[in-house]
Amino acid sequence: MDAAEFRRRGKEMVDFVADYQENIEHRRVYPDVEPGYLRSMIPSEAPLEPESYEDVLRDVDRVIMPGAANPACSELETVMLDWLGKMLQLPEDFLSETQGQGGGVIQGTASEATLMALLSARLKTVKCVQESDPQRSEADIISKLIAYTSEEAHSSVEKASIIGGVVIRMVPTDEHFSVRAETLEKMVAEDKATGYIPFFFCATLGTTPCCAFDKIDELGPICNAENIWMHIDAAYAGCAFICPEFRPLLNGVEFADSFSINPNKFLLVGFDCSAMWVKKSADLTRAFQMDPEYLKHEHQGSGWCNHLHQPYSTHKIHWGIPMARRFRSLKLWFVFRMYGLRGLQAFIRKHVELAKTFENLVRGDNNFEICAEVVMGLVCFRLKGSDELNKALLKQITRTGKIYLVPCKLRGRFVLRFVVCGRTTELRHIQEAWKHITELSSELLQNLFDHEGKEN
Amino acid sequence: MDAAEFRRRGKEMVDFVADYQENIEHRRVYPDVEPGYLRSMIPSEAPLEPESYEDVLRDVDRVIMPGAANPACSELETVMLDWLGKMLQLPEDFLSETQGQGGGVIQGTASEATLMALLSARLKTVKCVQESDPQRSEADIISKLIAYTSEEAHSSVEKASIIGGVVIRMVPTDEHFSVRAETLEKMVAEDKATGYIPFFFCATLGTTPCCAFDKIDELGPICNAENIWMHIDAAYAGCAFICPEFRPLLNGVEFADSFSINPNKFLLVGFDCSAMWVKKSADLTRAFQMDPEYLKHEHQGSGWCNHLHQPYSTHKIHWGIPMARRFRSLKLWFVFRMYGLRGLQAFIRKHVELAKTFENLVRGDNNFEICAEVVMGLVCFRLKGSDELNKALLKQITRTGKIYLVPCKLRGRFVLRFVVCGRTTELRHIQEAWKHITELSSELLQNLFDHEGKEN
Repeated sequence: MDAAEFRRRGKEMVDFVADYQENIEHRRVYPDVEPGYLRSMIPSEAPLEPESYEDVLRDVDRVIMPGAANPACSELETVMLDWLGKMLQLPEDFLSETQGQGGGVIQGTASEATLMALLSARLKTVKCVQESDPQRSEADIISKLIAYTSEEAHSSVEKASIIGGVVIRMVPTDEHFSVRAETLEKMVAEDKATGYIPFFFCATLGTTPCCAFDKIDELGPICNAENIWMHIDAAYAGCAFICPEFRPLLNGVEFADSFSINPNKFLLVGFDCSAMWVKKSADLTRAFQMDPEYLKHEHQGSGWCNHLHQPYSTHKIHWGIPMARRFRSLKLWFVFRMYGLRGLQAFIRKHVELAKTFENLVRGDNNFEICAEVVMGLVCFRLKGSDELNKALLKQITRTGKIYLVPCKLRGRFVLRFVVCGRTTELRHIQEAWKHITELSSELLQNLFDHEGKEN
Repeated sequence: MDAAEFRRRGKEMVDFVADYQENIEHRRVYPDVEPGYLRSMIPSEAPLEPESYEDVLRDVDRVIMPGAANPACSELETVMLDWLGKMLQLPEDFLSETQGQGGGVIQGTASEATLMALLSARLKTVKCVQESDPQRSEADIISKLIAYTSEEAHSSVEKASIIGGVVIRMVPTDEHFSVRAETLEKMVAEDKATGYIPFFFCATLGTTPCCAFDKIDELGPICNAENIWMHIDAAYAGCAFICPEFRPLLNGVEFADSFSINPNKFLLVGFDCSAMWVKKSADLTRAFQMDPEYLKHEHQGSGWCNHLHQPYSTHKIHWGIPMARRFRSLKLWFVFRMYGLRGLQAFIRKHVELAKTFENLVRGDNNFEICAEVVMGLVCFRLKGSDELNKALLKQITRTGKIYLVPCKLRGRFVLRFVVCGRTTELRHIQEAWKHITELSSELLQNLFDHEGKEN
């Protein structure tokens, strides 16, 4: 949608909201729909090709309005997570439509998804240990729990362990910054030998520093064998798995208990929106299920939830920390339909291609080096030379204010990170950015040369 | 803002966004402002009287745009929480502007605020116990921690205790459904005598079932004396404390460690927005402070935070679970200025007055009774008679779809709850609602009478 169309559609939407407000008194305050009404009203998969904005808006009237805020909110969320799950070719275990135990939920951020996974794993393990040893206290078990994640993982994994009150160990990575089975296996054996209980492993697909991928296809079987909950945090890179050429990186997801990606990072959806799937939703919900009177209602027995008027099987209040929730699935519905699967794939491919272009520009300049394999939209690079030199370059880049790079450390070295992430980024932006970087670096190197010349 | 003005302003805003998008390439990617730049650019208090929409929008250009997403986002949040804190006449300890240790943050929901308070209290207590007994393990201490809250408290308090892995005890309430000092004191003494460590009390101002108020002025001193963190959950009712006549209900807040209200419940701000204040922000942040390289930056020493470009003193990533955050303080800024303090007070008073009107209608009908004191916008009432009778009435009300009531249980009895909460609710709505309820109840009573007549 270009600016001109945005102006037109945005103004139509303002009228839509105002019309609703003006006529609100003529609407039922309580929806007159049956539990689960929504699924049969829309397709079971995202469209391949883009649909028209008119069609989507017409469906808001047809599908959403009769279901009011709820159950429409929860039911659309459930179906959208199925759509997205299918786009990602997730195993059926993770989908709701199979009427199994799995399903999806929207959390605010990947931090919350990781936390919910860790807390669910904690409860599951406590129950499991107590089954064979009923005398053992919950507190004693928790004090022996050990979580694992990559040394390259996002800090939110450590934060989750702090909140959960459990020990976490950082797993060293191989030369590609990936966690390997052998390393985890060894740590698990060590910890079990000293009386600890390995219970949770957070795998990362697309680490923050350099977009590295843990080998989940070899890690998964170990986790399954050891009763370790495997959560996969694929916040950024996971979005790209809707492209068949990237999907092999997700092989092994069948061993996972939970999985999350952030459509707001790489699927054109506004922040916040973290899609999370679990294989057994009861693991997630039984830890937090409480039923105060103000959440009870006439459909109680039949699976409805009072003032949320939604089937227990789909309502989401026990799937996360907050009770009230925003209608975030609308964002997914609009974007999936306005772009179509092919449009979203094209968007991702374009970003990756632009990153490859940048990589080639870096590789063509002898002053620079690439510091990690470029798989998606992130290029890790640096000037050949000291950390100080690279810090000086970054300082100049930031000061000038034309582009903005966030650095990282890889194997102790200071590294610059170039990320293609704008909706409207084109080839010329990449070329201009590289020209800008090389102009600043040339100045810097010239000054350094002059300075060294003087010193000699 | 009526529908006509909404149409006009909404469309102006669409153009504002489109203009921004069209000209984004001419903007600096990195803001050129000094840390803490924002506070001096806007008043230190909310206006008493409404300001014009044009003035607010002009300030978005003048104040927000130079600070980009951040630091503007965090700095405006910090100042808005000071504004709101002053509207509530919070003690200075809770404000940021005093450059003390206190300050405010926006959480998504009251559930998150309560959770963050409980987790902070947990860490503080562990550290405190370990100071006098360094050999004692964290796990052992946590296993002995006890939290308290009213038996009438929201289920999110229990949820927080489950997440935190601590025991919680529900404190019985007095005849006004309030927790009293004597009751808590007794429970604390009992628990200490058996080796437990009381560490957290969540007081409720405005309980969900009947809007009851714990006596924080008498509970606070006990918590302080016993080193129990007192958090006040005033999600709904707390908004009304901006009116001097309701402010006495908050007396005792000076004893609290943390306090939260939801402006999205009773201050005309859209969901989600839970305002939370703490007296010592370090209690909140030190539990979750982690510094990965991608959050470091050139202002590190001077108190700036890398890609958030904001002073450490105000940035909020260690104040909650998520790392990324939405720009929710804009909602507060717009609403505070468009209504002014007096406009917001008038809004609250109108709701309370409408609730009193409904209360009088109920009291004037001999078939009904009022079940709890009406303090704010909530009226708890029921038909004199059995729970079944009241359930039948609620069923009819819900089925008809004109109004929607959420019930509760008070002292084991099934009670209907009438809540005034719409932005556009007027006297005629209250009158129509009551007429509707009495028509349905008359039918019901008539049927019952006929039925009983037949049986006799």
